[in-house]
Amino acid sequence: MSKKLIIIGGGPGGYIAALRAAALGGKVTLIEKENLGGTCLNWGCIPSKIMKNSADLFLKCLKADQLGIKIEGSIIPDMHALMNRKEKILSTQRKGIASLLQSRGVAIEEGFGKILSKNLVEVTKADGQKIEVGFDKLIIAVGTKPMDVPDFPFDHKKILSSDDILVLDQIPVSMTIVGGGVIGCEFAFIFSALGCNVTIVEAMSRLLPLPSVDEACSKLLLREMKKRKIKVFCDTIVTTADTAGDGVGISLAPSPFTDNPKPQKLKTDDIQSQVMAVCIGRTPLSDGLGLENIGLSTMGPGWIPANEQMETPVENVYAIGDILGPEKIMLAHVASHEGLVAAQNAMGLKKDRKLTMAYEVVPGAIFTMPEIGTVGLSEKQAIVKGVEVETASVNFRVLGKAQAIDEIAGEAKMIIEKKSQKVLGVHMIGPHATDLIAEATLAIEKGLTAKEIAHTIHAHPTLAEIMGEVASKAMGMPLHG
Amino acid sequence: MSKKLIIIGGGPGGYIAALRAAALGGKVTLIEKENLGGTCLNWGCIPSKIMKNSADLFLKCLKADQLGIKIEGSIIPDMHALMNRKEKILSTQRKGIASLLQSRGVAIEEGFGKILSKNLVEVTKADGQKIEVGFDKLIIAVGTKPMDVPDFPFDHKKILSSDDILVLDQIPVSMTIVGGGVIGCEFAFIFSALGCNVTIVEAMSRLLPLPSVDEACSKLLLREMKKRKIKVFCDTIVTTADTAGDGVGISLAPSPFTDNPKPQKLKTDDIQSQVMAVCIGRTPLSDGLGLENIGLSTMGPGWIPANEQMETPVENVYAIGDILGPEKIMLAHVASHEGLVAAQNAMGLKKDRKLTMAYEVVPGAIFTMPEIGTVGLSEKQAIVKGVEVETASVNFRVLGKAQAIDEIAGEAKMIIEKKSQKVLGVHMIGPHATDLIAEATLAIEKGLTAKEIAHTIHAHPTLAEIMGEVASKAMGMPLHG
Repeated sequence: MSKKLIIIGGGPGGYIAALRAAALGGKVTLIEKENLGGTCLNWGCIPSKIMKNSADLFLKCLKADQLGIKIEGSIIPDMHALMNRKEKILSTQRKGIASLLQSRGVAIEEGFGKILSKNLVEVTKADGQKIEVGFDKLIIAVGTKPMDVPDFPFDHKKILSSDDILVLDQIPVSMTIVGGGVIGCEFAFIFSALGCNVTIVEAMSRLLPLPSVDEACSKLLLREMKKRKIKVFCDTIVTTADTAGDGVGISLAPSPFTDNPKPQKLKTDDIQSQVMAVCIGRTPLSDGLGLENIGLSTMGPGWIPANEQMETPVENVYAIGDILGPEKIMLAHVASHEGLVAAQNAMGLKKDRKLTMAYEVVPGAIFTMPEIGTVGLSEKQAIVKGVEVETASVNFRVLGKAQAIDEIAGEAKMIIEKKSQKVLGVHMIGPHATDLIAEATLAIEKGLTAKEIAHTIHAHPTLAEIMGEVASKAMGMPLHG
Repeated sequence: MSKKLIIIGGGPGGYIAALRAAALGGKVTLIEKENLGGTCLNWGCIPSKIMKNSADLFLKCLKADQLGIKIEGSIIPDMHALMNRKEKILSTQRKGIASLLQSRGVAIEEGFGKILSKNLVEVTKADGQKIEVGFDKLIIAVGTKPMDVPDFPFDHKKILSSDDILVLDQIPVSMTIVGGGVIGCEFAFIFSALGCNVTIVEAMSRLLPLPSVDEACSKLLLREMKKRKIKVFCDTIVTTADTAGDGVGISLAPSPFTDNPKPQKLKTDDIQSQVMAVCIGRTPLSDGLGLENIGLSTMGPGWIPANEQMETPVENVYAIGDILGPEKIMLAHVASHEGLVAAQNAMGLKKDRKLTMAYEVVPGAIFTMPEIGTVGLSEKQAIVKGVEVETASVNFRVLGKAQAIDEIAGEAKMIIEKKSQKVLGVHMIGPHATDLIAEATLAIEKGLTAKEIAHTIHAHPTLAEIMGEVASKAMGMPLHG
């Protein structure tokens, strides 16, 4: 008899797990309380990339004359049309996931899933109706929502979450973004491009203060922000936000959290903007899940513990995706792979054939302008690990293709182990960096050396040549860079 | 004493060889009769990509309203501005190569190089002055020029070469392109995008009739051409071109060369267009080189023979790049790698440490709309070799990123060996395909299996996910595709 599998949460982790479990012969039910696709499709990766695509195009139109395209007349962003396009794509994608799941035999239950016991989940529908579904195995993939600051909670009008930003019907005159992490930086470029006056307030010493992002990327990103007149305050926090007047009156203070031994002095302690967006992280959605009914304890604000086979401490219960919290890696493609691992392990017959999730070689894709792609160790991470490293950096401007497409800002940095010449990390900021990081990921995954990449022919004229350039330089035989 | 090395020809093969030989301690003189950068920079890869970039932007501007960018007014290509930008970039790039060569200690001689003996080259300057330069080793990298058809030679007004097309100061109302190979197809999309009425006449049964391009790419490309109203006549040749009237009167006939057992019937035997571009191939530039003075015989129209160590039959004389003819692979990145091999071997001290050029894993990048990236065997090539294969294809439209950037046309096809599951070839047509092929190239170079690619995490939302998708499908575990 085939195993009954329930998955709570239809984000990328959940629905990929459902597809794989069904392919392996499981009788799968996927429970989703809102829309298929989760944060990624509905409130994250995809809608923000749709906005970025339009922002990119707007910037290109403004300088089209230099590229031999003459536009006589006005060029203005049309948020209404942009939002319409976004909704259309999201709706198509949701339907696509639904029909994929249905075609592979997955049952979809729309509603809120609550665990009643070690083999029963209750689904509460939108109309209040409740049904019960039994399971042999359960995968929890409920995800997160934007986190606010108690001192200035989201009011969804002037103090915005990332969700609110994605449904703005007008471009604010000015926006202060609290948090210079991935989400904050992506929005900063999008709204700056669309004509908004953007300020970022970041508590740490640099933009993108993530160990997995090499400092070289942060440095170049800051330079690009300055070119676009985005104001950046590092080593700084927001203490209060006054929404009584026209916009938001924002008070700044030196950051008590900064990693900077000599933090920058406060340039001003008071800024004003039309809206303030709070992009400081995300918080788990485990409330009301009924975890107590199976004796599954959460950590911190509600993160669910799981090992690298995606097993929770409770037998037959797995957890994947953002609900695992920052101890794992909160990215859509990590969730999908965790979904594959969980599905395989939940369906697996033999204990000794368990799949294990590898977190060492996970690429990061950040859609700033230019894009950032990272994989493996940053220089600092390698040094902290005690590895003797060599590094090489090459500017994108040496590539003919970068010149041809008028996107010359950026650089790629490769970190190799001195002794073995193996590639430990590649961190790049530049055109198509989020695509180009795929080759580096494969190289690190397979333990290749700089020489092996340099000896692999890269097509001309492409942006992928940056990998050949930086690998050649890392092996001591520079070409153009 | 350091070796004296002369390189005739400053294209990508020649100047890369010069850089590498200088890095290895050689006393290097590079002789170039026109502009540094060769066909690639001056008459090929780079100028055509500059034109394509503007053509892409023009198309995007025309549908900007759908992407939320409102343009009120006229949008027209400005060939004058486009050509100015092109010249500016080319000039910057040439200077960049010159300063790179100078900074690495390479002497540059501008003039026509003629071999006088086994250790002497004569350089004739523009003003007629002649100098002589001695050598221990010689690398010939003189390249090619566009080939015409004796029955309708280039008149550079109505019957154009690819060089002529790159300096057009107006967009023709209509253009017939003879030859549906790489150059012909790239120009067809560029000029069609810019508003020209384009017709392609191809003697073989399909567009891009190269064994190294899988037929699936040709098929999808034809569909994209039809969407853009580019007319395509396969199995057809041009017999005469009459330039007496207003434009060019072109007579067609069934192709005697076609590989099609059931060639399409001639739809018309007579077409008319403002200009005709002949893109049927390239012809060697070995005339006047003085090859007879060292007893080096050429093949066919003047191709120079060389082995995979880039050695010609004459001791101490090497040849690289397009001058080797179609027996090798006539691509800029092949020339560069041949340059590295030749430089290393020319400078090498030990006979047993010779480098060898590997032609098996050479990526191809074709800048049509959408782009094409190919590497390794096509399905047909694999079958001809007697390999038992499996194939998988995935459409780009399944990727969220493709939807977000509004570039959903395309597919990726993977060819794997059935027994070993090793990847033999990847042939893709779609957005960023020319960059994405880099990962596939590394995979084939390293003999990886579909499973090893599928188990490597690809960042979301990127176009590089297509490799994860097609590899998963090839291993029998499809995700979205």
